[in-house]
Amino acid sequence: MPRTIDHEARRARIGEAVWRLVLREGVGAVSLRTVAAEAGLVLGSLRHSFPTKAELLAFAMGLAHERAAARVARHDAEPDPRRRVDGALHELLPLDDERTVEMRVHLALMAEGPRHAELTALSDAAHDAIAGLCRRCLHELREAGLVAGRRDLAREAVALHALVDGLALHAMQDAARRPAAVRALADHLDALATEPPRRP
Amino acid sequence: MPRTIDHEARRARIGEAVWRLVLREGVGAVSLRTVAAEAGLVLGSLRHSFPTKAELLAFAMGLAHERAAARVARHDAEPDPRRRVDGALHELLPLDDERTVEMRVHLALMAEGPRHAELTALSDAAHDAIAGLCRRCLHELREAGLVAGRRDLAREAVALHALVDGLALHAMQDAARRPAAVRALADHLDALATEPPRRP
Repeated sequence: MPRTIDHEARRARIGEAVWRLVLREGVGAVSLRTVAAEAGLVLGSLRHSFPTKAELLAFAMGLAHERAAARVARHDAEPDPRRRVDGALHELLPLDDERTVEMRVHLALMAEGPRHAELTALSDAAHDAIAGLCRRCLHELREAGLVAGRRDLAREAVALHALVDGLALHAMQDAARRPAAVRALADHLDALATEPPRRP
Repeated sequence: MPRTIDHEARRARIGEAVWRLVLREGVGAVSLRTVAAEAGLVLGSLRHSFPTKAELLAFAMGLAHERAAARVARHDAEPDPRRRVDGALHELLPLDDERTVEMRVHLALMAEGPRHAELTALSDAAHDAIAGLCRRCLHELREAGLVAGRRDLAREAVALHALVDGLALHAMQDAARRPAAVRALADHLDALATEPPRRP
């Protein structure tokens, strides 16, 4: 048991060291040497776990996604469907510093995609996971009678996902926008109960 | 006249050289030397216009915003309100390679904000410009009778802006999502004509 805990703690220490370097100095400042120094590790020990910069970057991005997914999963036990959906989706909005750091790291590493295919693959996987979460939320709300019959859940999922990511981007840029983001998401979920206009 | 055209062409050549470097090699690869080489200019001539890397980056980001704003403005002459709004907002979605490049450059440079305050200021100004455009679109749609009476335009503007930016992010990551982005925006604008649920 203690060895597992040590292993997890060491991974977190490395991942968060990469995050701090990315946010403070930019992706260009990340190297095995700078990360070892930032994490307070011996270079050889870090190289043993992460032989290349590309692996370090991919690990750091994956850690941000893992953290978000773990927070989302904590809401599974909530029995009220609307509260469960609110709780899960709020984990994707940067409503506190922890989530803001994760999102900044995600975007900075996503911008590295053209040079690191693995980061694009991770970013695509995170996109698909959030798309799946949005579909699941909409299905649960429909089962609870909170989505009007004529709403197409596949199209609603595209819109919900885009709204959440757009609100997240805006709240990340300015913390003063956090309350408006929560309100806009609530308005959107409330409106699902109304019938949409007939499509021609 | 020819001198103005030359001046504009030279600015575009420099700005686009920065864009290519940012997208191909990352912001870390941008320097007066690399930009001069990429643009095919003499270093001293570039330094005369842009003495520092920070000025080059700010200019390159501003150029992306200028291009988008010029495209949006071209729709002002459209007499049909809904077509005018569709046309303007589509300019903010990366529906072709030109808009995709602009958006990638914008995001990559936004991630540099912690090191270049000017980029954060430009990014905030672009956000405010799009927020203003969303408010204007909603006012024009209301005047044309296309927005239900009980809808609060300030709240609708927050949601519309987030939806557009979220759809743009998703279409930028995968061009196959372009048609779904256009459809989701159309659905959203169509739904403005329906009354929202009563707020408690």
